[in-house]
Amino acid sequence: MSQTLNCVELLRRAVRPTTFVQSRTLSELAGANVVIASETFQHTGSFKFRAAYNVVQQTNAPHLIAASSGNFGQALACACQLLSKRCTVVMPATSAQVKIDAVRRYGGVVELVDTTKVSRADRVKQLALEHTDAQVVSAYDDQLVIDGNSSLGEEIIECGEKFDAIIVPVGGGGLASGIVRALQRHNDQTPVYGAEPKIANDASRSLQEGKIIRNDDEPQSIADGARTLSLGLNNWPILQSGLRTIIEVEEADIENAVRVLFTAANLKVEPTGALTVAALLAQKNTFTKQNVCCIVSGGNVDAAVYRRILENA
Amino acid sequence: MSQTLNCVELLRRAVRPTTFVQSRTLSELAGANVVIASETFQHTGSFKFRAAYNVVQQTNAPHLIAASSGNFGQALACACQLLSKRCTVVMPATSAQVKIDAVRRYGGVVELVDTTKVSRADRVKQLALEHTDAQVVSAYDDQLVIDGNSSLGEEIIECGEKFDAIIVPVGGGGLASGIVRALQRHNDQTPVYGAEPKIANDASRSLQEGKIIRNDDEPQSIADGARTLSLGLNNWPILQSGLRTIIEVEEADIENAVRVLFTAANLKVEPTGALTVAALLAQKNTFTKQNVCCIVSGGNVDAAVYRRILENA
Repeated sequence: MSQTLNCVELLRRAVRPTTFVQSRTLSELAGANVVIASETFQHTGSFKFRAAYNVVQQTNAPHLIAASSGNFGQALACACQLLSKRCTVVMPATSAQVKIDAVRRYGGVVELVDTTKVSRADRVKQLALEHTDAQVVSAYDDQLVIDGNSSLGEEIIECGEKFDAIIVPVGGGGLASGIVRALQRHNDQTPVYGAEPKIANDASRSLQEGKIIRNDDEPQSIADGARTLSLGLNNWPILQSGLRTIIEVEEADIENAVRVLFTAANLKVEPTGALTVAALLAQKNTFTKQNVCCIVSGGNVDAAVYRRILENA
Repeated sequence: MSQTLNCVELLRRAVRPTTFVQSRTLSELAGANVVIASETFQHTGSFKFRAAYNVVQQTNAPHLIAASSGNFGQALACACQLLSKRCTVVMPATSAQVKIDAVRRYGGVVELVDTTKVSRADRVKQLALEHTDAQVVSAYDDQLVIDGNSSLGEEIIECGEKFDAIIVPVGGGGLASGIVRALQRHNDQTPVYGAEPKIANDASRSLQEGKIIRNDDEPQSIADGARTLSLGLNNWPILQSGLRTIIEVEEADIENAVRVLFTAANLKVEPTGALTVAALLAQKNTFTKQNVCCIVSGGNVDAAVYRRILENA
């Protein structure tokens, strides 16, 4: 444990501290005292840098490979660049150019795959066989990823507020596991709530049924960071014991939360980043008059998508 | 001076500290190391709260009156509410409902005037005669306003970075004067550059001609915080001696800077808030390889305006 703590301390010198944002308007709207822990100004614009940097820092491999069409790819490429390692990110050939460019800007090699012919996972396996010095990295199902994300939990614990609840977005479960792990390390009993899109509710169903439930297909939630098929094996036991519950959020409520954060808090967030505020506003009764920390996981959203969401503001 | 410093210390317990944001992409684009001091998460969403709170805190009057259709009105209403004083804000009858609502949300009384019949300044004078216990407050031309804004300068001085340049937006000159005053207080020689819309360049012309030049009409820059007719009398001597120069910025460059901050820094800013980044990008040669602090003055922009600006992203 002290080994892990030392690594987390080392990591915290590399990451940017989270940004705590308060909005009186949002607090009034929620009927609670809301503190946002925003990872939108983290390196590469999302919390994923915490996990990526920790993996790259702690592995001996000179070359990291991951499948990611989103924030983890950028974060891994950036961490590899900072620590002078090679990075390959497998992305669908249909990925937005802006996301491909972002990985390349950080010196990552992008491997585009025609996913109608070969799955991303299979291409990653092929690459791992070709590059025997490389290590394949999961964006969420990995103890080093969880430890990396726990650094955000440490910051929340140390921020000077005593929270009645922490709400965290749930996709593969890497961030939620990290927050729970940090609290457990400090014997901190603050309840942690997950926030998950209703149309991608595998984690919520998993908690209810007591075993990992998988989505049949990648759910097409606007919260693209929560489009995972299931919780990771490493995340599951931590979340099963550590999450109070998971709040399922409607798609329209996610978009509304993006607008609320724009209007009431001056925060530009990606839809996945708005999940926790959507959950808070959907379950006001649960949090009435409480001191609530909502984690905003990232801010990377295409201008066109953002413009469409703002149409109804 | 120590009296002023004590008041600034008192003020700093009431304001939210500024948010320092870094973006590698923005720094690469500028060819400089850029640190943004963002006031978008300040109470009421702009730096104006610093000045408003300082005035309300230091005056004995139980009632404050100001003319403002923008951020100062909200800030004054909020400060008066926090310090249990009355507040009246004179606004044109044509003001956006969202701005009227914002003042009222903080308990301010809104006096709408038909500006084709009576000027806002005249209505303020009438109100001052009606309310003999009230004090009229300027948004920028006031020593207490300048002292209040100097609290942001203190934070920049203390942030741990040694800057080669600080760029600050210039409208009436209240913020720029505050930054210069803080630096002078500490004998800090860091050059301060103003950023002003080219179509509202009265301050730039004033510096060049050595006397206050007034715009004939309110210039219709998209940076609505810089639509002032001229620098204030209190601001003029401070800026004449304290500003290195003022960079004039094209309207298109202001909109581009709003987009750059959205894309490269995940920051939602109002057009006036983007002036300094626009100036930095317009005069890259001046700041090459320097460590530059750009002050982003506020984030309050209507969704419709923001959507239009993002169209070209």
